[in-house]
Amino acid sequence: METKAFQDYYPDDLSHCFGCGSKNEHGHQLKSFWDGDETVARITPEQHHTAIPGYVYGGFVASIIDCHGTGTAAAAAYKAENRSMDSLPPFRFVTASLKVNYRKPTPLGVELEVRGKVSELKGRKVIVTASVFANGELCADGEVVAVQMPENMLPK
Amino acid sequence: METKAFQDYYPDDLSHCFGCGSKNEHGHQLKSFWDGDETVARITPEQHHTAIPGYVYGGFVASIIDCHGTGTAAAAAYKAENRSMDSLPPFRFVTASLKVNYRKPTPLGVELEVRGKVSELKGRKVIVTASVFANGELCADGEVVAVQMPENMLPK
Repeated sequence: METKAFQDYYPDDLSHCFGCGSKNEHGHQLKSFWDGDETVARITPEQHHTAIPGYVYGGFVASIIDCHGTGTAAAAAYKAENRSMDSLPPFRFVTASLKVNYRKPTPLGVELEVRGKVSELKGRKVIVTASVFANGELCADGEVVAVQMPENMLPK
Repeated sequence: METKAFQDYYPDDLSHCFGCGSKNEHGHQLKSFWDGDETVARITPEQHHTAIPGYVYGGFVASIIDCHGTGTAAAAAYKAENRSMDSLPPFRFVTASLKVNYRKPTPLGVELEVRGKVSELKGRKVIVTASVFANGELCADGEVVAVQMPENMLPK
């Protein structure tokens, strides 16, 4: 597995996302990688990321599916152009819609694995399906519709 | 408007949710209230809840829709039984599925308003639609399918 994550290739001024920005010291700093044709990220929530005691709160699960989805979208877009992720211009995707199905309570205190698959890549849009596992068991799955970041969102 | 929020009626041992638990000192402590037939919550994200600089990250928006949805579900369930929220047994809902449509980038630095409506209440399931506004403009909307917390999730 590569040591540099998808998110490590984001331009510096677009690396402040709470979910996955390498420059957000308060955030989750999710790191996503290729694993064959799928993508994977692993993260252990902190004790305060509680829902009902003992379980991970839904917003955390939604957040890691969201950020793994946009990261996977960017990586897939480079791959489709046969470009490395450090080549220019950079790809950066934002979320148009997010769906999460909570299949069973996600236990707190163990590493979670998020797996992604590209189900569609067309023009500026990439659809990624994602599944979240704890102790090898499926806890949640969902879908991210990611679109290339509009120019007018660029930091001034 | 009442001063006590839906979440303030959750039993103490079920009040640790990062999104809305009054006893989670690290969390968002979302507070939801009735406003006529709708429900409303207002919250101002912190500066580090960034997506692309200047905007709120998607996981935060998902989290407040999620928690406002489960809170609205509980309030609606009491209402359907014509019971006050401090009567027993308590209602506590968890999320079966969450859908969020990001309609436009949610600006960071202003108070967000989440509005909820019950679209279905049947047995142990409540469906809530929710919209998130910033400066009076719709930024996101979505749907929460909430179900009564299974007994086996109760903290031991």
